[in-house]
Amino acid sequence: MPDIVIERMLQEYAAAVRAKDVDRLLALYADDVRVFDMWGRWSYDGAGAWRGMATEWLGSLGDEQVAVEFDEVETVVGDGVAIAAAFVTYKGLSADGQELRAMNNRLTWGLTKRSGHNWKVVHEHSSAPIDFDTGKVQLQRPAS
Amino acid sequence: MPDIVIERMLQEYAAAVRAKDVDRLLALYADDVRVFDMWGRWSYDGAGAWRGMATEWLGSLGDEQVAVEFDEVETVVGDGVAIAAAFVTYKGLSADGQELRAMNNRLTWGLTKRSGHNWKVVHEHSSAPIDFDTGKVQLQRPAS
Repeated sequence: MPDIVIERMLQEYAAAVRAKDVDRLLALYADDVRVFDMWGRWSYDGAGAWRGMATEWLGSLGDEQVAVEFDEVETVVGDGVAIAAAFVTYKGLSADGQELRAMNNRLTWGLTKRSGHNWKVVHEHSSAPIDFDTGKVQLQRPAS
Repeated sequence: MPDIVIERMLQEYAAAVRAKDVDRLLALYADDVRVFDMWGRWSYDGAGAWRGMATEWLGSLGDEQVAVEFDEVETVVGDGVAIAAAFVTYKGLSADGQELRAMNNRLTWGLTKRSGHNWKVVHEHSSAPIDFDTGKVQLQRPAS
């Protein structure tokens, strides 16, 4: 039931980020993952490069936490390859759980199940739309 | 040989854009395509919405043309579902073929082959990285 597998992987992503657990987060990704991340860099090629980003991000949070929620998740599941696309909300929480800020992203996952292995994310693409006139990223998705 | 099919579809995308042929472009997409496009909007849901974007874009070019090139194309191909990820260069050309401007994007395609049909793009995600300090999109990929 791959739809449920993908749903579990999204929840595992959220739990790993909330726990600031780099190993747990990286366990979701294939060794040869290629990530088109929203911030600063054209691509991260391989789990080592992506681990560096995750270590820096999760290590920079101090006593804050990040809560991750997914909306409008759509999946296309084949035999050995699957796609998931969703809207994401990242909420920055203070040590006592108060919401400090929130932003929205769009997330695409490409997933593979190689023989004898679990499903892994082999490609990730995250972004938010760009305002054509200013060239600035829009981080708040209007209520639909 | 799905890798060749994807390569042909990318070349067909480039040819349709160069010809400003909306029907030819839309023939690459599934009716229920969901596009996370780089510009202005969180998603285009369905081929009708995406056709509207394509009509506006290609209709706005006047006597200019757009040349599209793909680099570092990577594919993951399963039985009925495939993923492609690439860097894209869009070059604006004058009526006499001179390059006026160029920008880079990152492109992800999710593809499906439904029974009795050709492969179609069911999900597209395009973006470019955002500068963390300014929030501005970076449209020029450094030579790698």
